[in-house]
Amino acid sequence: MTVRMFLGSEPVTAVAPDDRGLAYGESLFETMRAHRGTLPWWTAHMARLRHGAERLAMPLPDVAHMHAAARELLDGADGVLKLQLTRGGGVRGYAPDMDAPPFWMLSVHSLPPHADALAVIWCETTLASQPRLVGLKHGNRLEQVLAATEVRAVQANEGLMRDAAGNVIAATSANLFALIDGRWQTPALDACGVAGVMRGWLLAHADAQVTSLAPDDIDGADAVFLCNAVRGILPVRRLDARVWSQVRPEIRALQSALAQAHPGFDASMEAS
Amino acid sequence: MTVRMFLGSEPVTAVAPDDRGLAYGESLFETMRAHRGTLPWWTAHMARLRHGAERLAMPLPDVAHMHAAARELLDGADGVLKLQLTRGGGVRGYAPDMDAPPFWMLSVHSLPPHADALAVIWCETTLASQPRLVGLKHGNRLEQVLAATEVRAVQANEGLMRDAAGNVIAATSANLFALIDGRWQTPALDACGVAGVMRGWLLAHADAQVTSLAPDDIDGADAVFLCNAVRGILPVRRLDARVWSQVRPEIRALQSALAQAHPGFDASMEAS
Repeated sequence: MTVRMFLGSEPVTAVAPDDRGLAYGESLFETMRAHRGTLPWWTAHMARLRHGAERLAMPLPDVAHMHAAARELLDGADGVLKLQLTRGGGVRGYAPDMDAPPFWMLSVHSLPPHADALAVIWCETTLASQPRLVGLKHGNRLEQVLAATEVRAVQANEGLMRDAAGNVIAATSANLFALIDGRWQTPALDACGVAGVMRGWLLAHADAQVTSLAPDDIDGADAVFLCNAVRGILPVRRLDARVWSQVRPEIRALQSALAQAHPGFDASMEAS
Repeated sequence: MTVRMFLGSEPVTAVAPDDRGLAYGESLFETMRAHRGTLPWWTAHMARLRHGAERLAMPLPDVAHMHAAARELLDGADGVLKLQLTRGGGVRGYAPDMDAPPFWMLSVHSLPPHADALAVIWCETTLASQPRLVGLKHGNRLEQVLAATEVRAVQANEGLMRDAAGNVIAATSANLFALIDGRWQTPALDACGVAGVMRGWLLAHADAQVTSLAPDDIDGADAVFLCNAVRGILPVRRLDARVWSQVRPEIRALQSALAQAHPGFDASMEAS
């Protein structure tokens, strides 16, 4: 893992043992698709990060500095750029030091393999409802870890998660769209779930509706795809016993639009 | 902060940047009161840690090694010994490497000042219900961080947290007991909250009942105290507008029993 670490505006060489991201998951992160050393959706990722920092009352490092450091670390490559931001150090106890300089870390990872026909399961682990954290890509991710462990146990590609009332919310690391009665629908994120950057792009560029969805709605959908900012639009081929044997032209149309909007996804379509 | 770090059985000098405690809060911790270099309740803390590791399917380091390292780090002192245990390193993505050696870290902190008359508030931040994580002292603590921020904003000593349905669960860093109709009662932890080691001791040694409690039950109680394994039994003097002007003999009796069971709390009573 190629990595750079900073405390406030200064480079550092190690994670502090008293880092509050390590102690309490008091952190936010963004995972971005890089294309030839650029981050085409940097602005959208920073908008979400800034929103998260405001809601957690965490200071945000200088955005131009983070961008320059990310570009330097990428050094022209394709790949995945992960940015983690924590509250920084602090004394023992839950109350944070609001004046501590934030810790931030950049790391570059290889692109995941292209996938065009996901096998997906229903996870047993549910998402708890927490209005104060909904939508944020924060560092409290044990629910996703437990659900991802379920997914790997059966060698599926992804898993769908519901809230305690049974509403469908998202996959473990992706948002979800279903084609129902001729229109794309995606779950409302009122009390749990992460408001993905790719979901945001789709809501702005596709004819899609935010609504509440039950598992039966997904089973009855004409098409289903998962999406995130690293992997793009991923058609679901199988959801437990339900099979969608063909990738619908409505999905291909969205993938084409995405490839025009973000050149990283154009390259991945060529490779497939 | 005096600190020692280990990966599996080997000492290390830094937190790995890919540590999954840092990435996702995939961790557990125990905070123990040390007395003259000893940890009188080590066994109870290890029982909870082992239970947490089993539920998260995380490997547990050798308990005797952890104990010896903790004793060495304490070097005869009084204080607070914190043990953090994480999944260790891993690739990007929520699915953990089940074979990764666990990272663990010991740190020694000064004892908090003795408190005998807490001023407590009701926090607005609620605790989300998550049956897969209830009871564990895991590293996903943003709810407590947000609630502790509320507490500090009004310069209170602690804050009580409710679940989404309004049931009283706990304080931000302590469990809660209320004297109602002549008997100690403490909230059931069926879907949220941490099952504290001190709470466990009280349930074993006091005539106490686990039940569901509403805010009105607390306001109407004849006495209320908070408790944790570092600070012992802390009488509540004020809860928003409600005042308990005297510390009841029932609380003093429990504090005396505690001082006999754990010599660290005997010393703190002498100091008060």
